[in-house]
Amino acid sequence: MIELYTAPTPNGHKVSIALEEMKMDYSVVPVDLRKGVQKEPDYLRLNPNGRIPTIVDKANNDFVVFESGAILIYLAEQTGQFMPKDVNGRSRVIQWLMFQMSGVGPMMGQANVFHRYFPEKIQPAIDRYQNEVRRLFGVLDGQLANNEYLAGNYSIADMANWAWVRTHSWSGVEIENMPSLQRWVDAIYQRPAAKKGIEIPQRPDAEEIVRSGQKMIQR
Amino acid sequence: MIELYTAPTPNGHKVSIALEEMKMDYSVVPVDLRKGVQKEPDYLRLNPNGRIPTIVDKANNDFVVFESGAILIYLAEQTGQFMPKDVNGRSRVIQWLMFQMSGVGPMMGQANVFHRYFPEKIQPAIDRYQNEVRRLFGVLDGQLANNEYLAGNYSIADMANWAWVRTHSWSGVEIENMPSLQRWVDAIYQRPAAKKGIEIPQRPDAEEIVRSGQKMIQR
Repeated sequence: MIELYTAPTPNGHKVSIALEEMKMDYSVVPVDLRKGVQKEPDYLRLNPNGRIPTIVDKANNDFVVFESGAILIYLAEQTGQFMPKDVNGRSRVIQWLMFQMSGVGPMMGQANVFHRYFPEKIQPAIDRYQNEVRRLFGVLDGQLANNEYLAGNYSIADMANWAWVRTHSWSGVEIENMPSLQRWVDAIYQRPAAKKGIEIPQRPDAEEIVRSGQKMIQR
Repeated sequence: MIELYTAPTPNGHKVSIALEEMKMDYSVVPVDLRKGVQKEPDYLRLNPNGRIPTIVDKANNDFVVFESGAILIYLAEQTGQFMPKDVNGRSRVIQWLMFQMSGVGPMMGQANVFHRYFPEKIQPAIDRYQNEVRRLFGVLDGQLANNEYLAGNYSIADMANWAWVRTHSWSGVEIENMPSLQRWVDAIYQRPAAKKGIEIPQRPDAEEIVRSGQKMIQR
């Protein structure tokens, strides 16, 4: 049994998608980013970085895992799902997962900050990050031109990248001219587990929390 | 035998440090970022993201690994060094490695861009990234207050974070008020492999390449 501390953001959704895909038994503890719960001492004891998501594995002596990319690898290894076991296949998945963790996530995050939340409109910063997001999307599009998924079969690397890429409009970047990326985004939307994952935590004001949560990050 | 495509930047140094620590047999192919070699077709066939570092494992049918974090995990697994084999110990190392990949690296990178390279001086952007770097350093300092290294014994997580943190002055962030972080930075400087790793690739104009390479990234 996994306890998932999360909020409705792309990094949270990566993990809820994975838990759904793996058909794991889990409970959700919503973390209210608007109230700053992620910076309270009880939460910081679980996750010293004060971010979501975090998991506590009740079946492994309450072992705590933070950083969404580390959680995905942990879950894939514990369940033997969505990451190959051979050295090369496994490394390919980790490579595209790292591409998301170090590139797509941080750069879309910065694009969102300057495009949506920053008190001043600083056009050179908006351009910088939107251009970098376009460049990274181009890399994904190229990889997906010759591959159905990013690294062999559908894997945690797809879950991680998809949770971010699907929100491209929020970053002010369109993908109509990237047919392979669009095909892959659409295909994953057809997966019931992915669709369910992005509704967790379910709350009527989810979208508003995403926005206020991302506002908090910038402070 | 590993072929390492690299340049004298923190992401390149992570891997040269690891190869030195693991006493691996490797050859270095310097990638001249000033000339844009990393964007040429031959290099993009190895690394579609057009960044350094990349490795080619001659002992594994020329298997290619890109993304510095993925390379570190691959090398640790292939050699059985600097990452525990038990589930929890291994996950702790991956968590702190992800913390570097998604946080310390991207945020120091953005601080460098706005503090050092951007054509305009945009103080709110400089402040944003330097403050975020300070916050992340505080998380590391807290972890190191009670632990000699980030995740149990000295590991690839330390190598990855150290390669960036040691360059803090370049980002305009000082660490004098973070005694545990300073102690750890100094301790790793005492390791011959770490000292050797940050001199690879060795060239007289290394520092200038770092700067022009980081300039290119911003284009």
